[in-house]
Amino acid sequence: MIYLTKRLTFSSSHVLMNPDYDSDKNWDVYGKCSWPHGHGHNYTLEVTVKGEIPEETGMIIDLKVLKKIVNDTIVDKMDHKFLNTDVEFLKGVIPTAENIVVKIWEELETVLEPGMLCELKLWETENNWVVYRGE
Amino acid sequence: MIYLTKRLTFSSSHVLMNPDYDSDKNWDVYGKCSWPHGHGHNYTLEVTVKGEIPEETGMIIDLKVLKKIVNDTIVDKMDHKFLNTDVEFLKGVIPTAENIVVKIWEELETVLEPGMLCELKLWETENNWVVYRGE
Amino acid sequence: MIYLTKRLTFSSSHVLMNPDYDSDKNWDVYGKCSWPHGHGHNYTLEVTVKGEIPEETGMIIDLKVLKKIVNDTIVDKMDHKFLNTDVEFLKGVIPTAENIVVKIWEELETVLEPGMLCELKLWETENNWVVYRGE
Amino acid sequence: MIYLTKRLTFSSSHVLMNPDYDSDKNWDVYGKCSWPHGHGHNYTLEVTVKGEIPEETGMIIDLKVLKKIVNDTIVDKMDHKFLNTDVEFLKGVIPTAENIVVKIWEELETVLEPGMLCELKLWETENNWVVYRGE
Amino acid sequence: MIYLTKRLTFSSSHVLMNPDYDSDKNWDVYGKCSWPHGHGHNYTLEVTVKGEIPEETGMIIDLKVLKKIVNDTIVDKMDHKFLNTDVEFLKGVIPTAENIVVKIWEELETVLEPGMLCELKLWETENNWVVYRGE
Amino acid sequence: MIYLTKRLTFSSSHVLMNPDYDSDKNWDVYGKCSWPHGHGHNYTLEVTVKGEIPEETGMIIDLKVLKKIVNDTIVDKMDHKFLNTDVEFLKGVIPTAENIVVKIWEELETVLEPGMLCELKLWETENNWVVYRGE
Repeated sequence: MIYLTKRLTFSSSHVLMNPDYDSDKNWDVYGKCSWPHGHGHNYTLEVTVKGEIPEETGMIIDLKVLKKIVNDTIVDKMDHKFLNTDVEFLKGVIPTAENIVVKIWEELETVLEPGMLCELKLWETENNWVVYRGE
Repeated sequence: MIYLTKRLTFSSSHVLMNPDYDSDKNWDVYGKCSWPHGHGHNYTLEVTVKGEIPEETGMIIDLKVLKKIVNDTIVDKMDHKFLNTDVEFLKGVIPTAENIVVKIWEELETVLEPGMLCELKLWETENNWVVYRGE
Repeated sequence: MIYLTKRLTFSSSHVLMNPDYDSDKNWDVYGKCSWPHGHGHNYTLEVTVKGEIPEETGMIIDLKVLKKIVNDTIVDKMDHKFLNTDVEFLKGVIPTAENIVVKIWEELETVLEPGMLCELKLWETENNWVVYRGE
Repeated sequence: MIYLTKRLTFSSSHVLMNPDYDSDKNWDVYGKCSWPHGHGHNYTLEVTVKGEIPEETGMIIDLKVLKKIVNDTIVDKMDHKFLNTDVEFLKGVIPTAENIVVKIWEELETVLEPGMLCELKLWETENNWVVYRGE
Repeated sequence: MIYLTKRLTFSSSHVLMNPDYDSDKNWDVYGKCSWPHGHGHNYTLEVTVKGEIPEETGMIIDLKVLKKIVNDTIVDKMDHKFLNTDVEFLKGVIPTAENIVVKIWEELETVLEPGMLCELKLWETENNWVVYRGE
Repeated sequence: MIYLTKRLTFSSSHVLMNPDYDSDKNWDVYGKCSWPHGHGHNYTLEVTVKGEIPEETGMIIDLKVLKKIVNDTIVDKMDHKFLNTDVEFLKGVIPTAENIVVKIWEELETVLEPGMLCELKLWETENNWVVYRGE
């Protein structure tokens, strides 16, 4: 079993606030991330797939194909967008890194071969990141 | 003459559009950066100062002091903000990396010892950055 | 289940020597790391916690809180210190990366919510690091 | 149980082509990687070993010893070589990252203490890498 | 005056040998880089252009345009190629980093606005790079 | 004129204190860097040399030779040492980054071809560095 990872980046903005909270409560919970005009990040997404190596090709997936799938399904929809309102598959969730990575998983799982998607790592900054394995 | 650099980071959002252009023209000039809801970056700012080494201390400036000056003057005002509307010293300019770095220079020059500020490097992403030397 | 990581850095010095060895034996075992005046590193510590995402906040822990806990418990006690003598929780062990990471785990486990701490990664240089998962 | 990783680099060239395919089929499967004159990479190899910490030394392995083993067994044989023809232990496989990492595992397993080798990570570029755990 | 840099990467192979030397002499001068089957690198190219900021756009050049120019003129011709034989503009020179960076300068100068090209930085590995400023 | 840079690393410890100051004054000037037991860093040193490209070799200096010179003259003397007492060429100066980089210049200038040494960059951490050009 081999694990292969492709790294991609995109630049988006967001606000962290719960619409059921008033602004004081949002400040308590989210601090400066709740500033209503928003802020942004250079997100880095690492997509790990797994598989047995086919003897004929020596590759578990064509990297160009994997890159195109992730770009079409995720990056092109999130890059240079405001994550609170502009991304269909993020509608209805507060766009924390935790929630985003789960939603990206749900999207990728529908377009990758069943059982292939193994781990997603989403960096918000060089000092903070989340990992999700579909568990 | 020694050149000393301090690196700091902040996360902000912006939109690139010229209010005198219509949206088609803004799209032609700024592409996806003109998306009206904005997008964001993890900016990295490298502040370089220069000086002769004082024999008594061996330091051209106390790094803690330099860090506090840059944080008070720049980072705390830009971090987790929307650069088009929220930062006093950016009012009236389109927040391209080029314009931002010049404005940061103008702010830092007023609070650092005359002649000390030497170079600013502002990274928008790991693949794009600008440098300004006050020329 | 989401895994969230916070990265922090500190700069410390240490000597690797077993007080039961003579200096020849220490040289055999630890090489240049046994130089009695010590040497140092920019350590990087990655603290990974895990949890289910609460629907209300979308965050498994407030990153500011996690950062403060790790700073108060670990970083402020190790940063700019000599690890052989200056850190209470490292007393009695040879400060190899392996021993340090286990001791950091023991400290963090007492201050984090039970079951939350998941993995520690401690970098001594860009080419060497250790991982501990409390096993 | 502690996991310790050593990072090493080497620079090699390769071509991806299946000798049973004609050049059109090779282009379909491997794209520009099938260019017959080859291309190259700065490979990064991360070797992770695991072990219990011996109380006497505090180290699961002497890093100098681990580095020498990996250099002698792998790096010196692959560095500045053409992987399709010049490396004995890669003979007979298409030198994809997937195949290379498995072959490196087979070599290292014979020279490291049984059960010590835990994970190999091989970076082809900053955006693509594979992991193998001997499974 | 603003200096703007775009970073791009490509993966190529090469051999360092002077055809007027015999193989012993090539080994003396180029060491393992003279291995006749070649080796390769993930090259990183940083292209710096300079200009005054136009008030209307706030950008000294459209980054997408700069990227397209460098891709068309340089990257697409060097990526996944063997630099000794496959690149028209490198014909007749030994493909050391020093020679390559000068040749890239000559190509880019013909397609960029006169006086705009300011500096090229070409990384062969994370530990070696060259800079050329057209002097 | 080509500028060629070689990057090397070493791990050392130091204390910043002026022996003419009392400990209060040292604390005021150097803060936690004045802790008497010392602390340490993974220093990174970038050595830039310049030259015209000889047509015969295409290299302004053999990188292996440059590396050996810097290792023999600097790295082997500073690595895994306590910079306040263990390094002959640092005797008599407070080992700030500013002072260290000047002393390294003085050493390298005596062993490199006259006029070849161009710039030294010394990183103390990923966020602080100094540059010296012999001016």
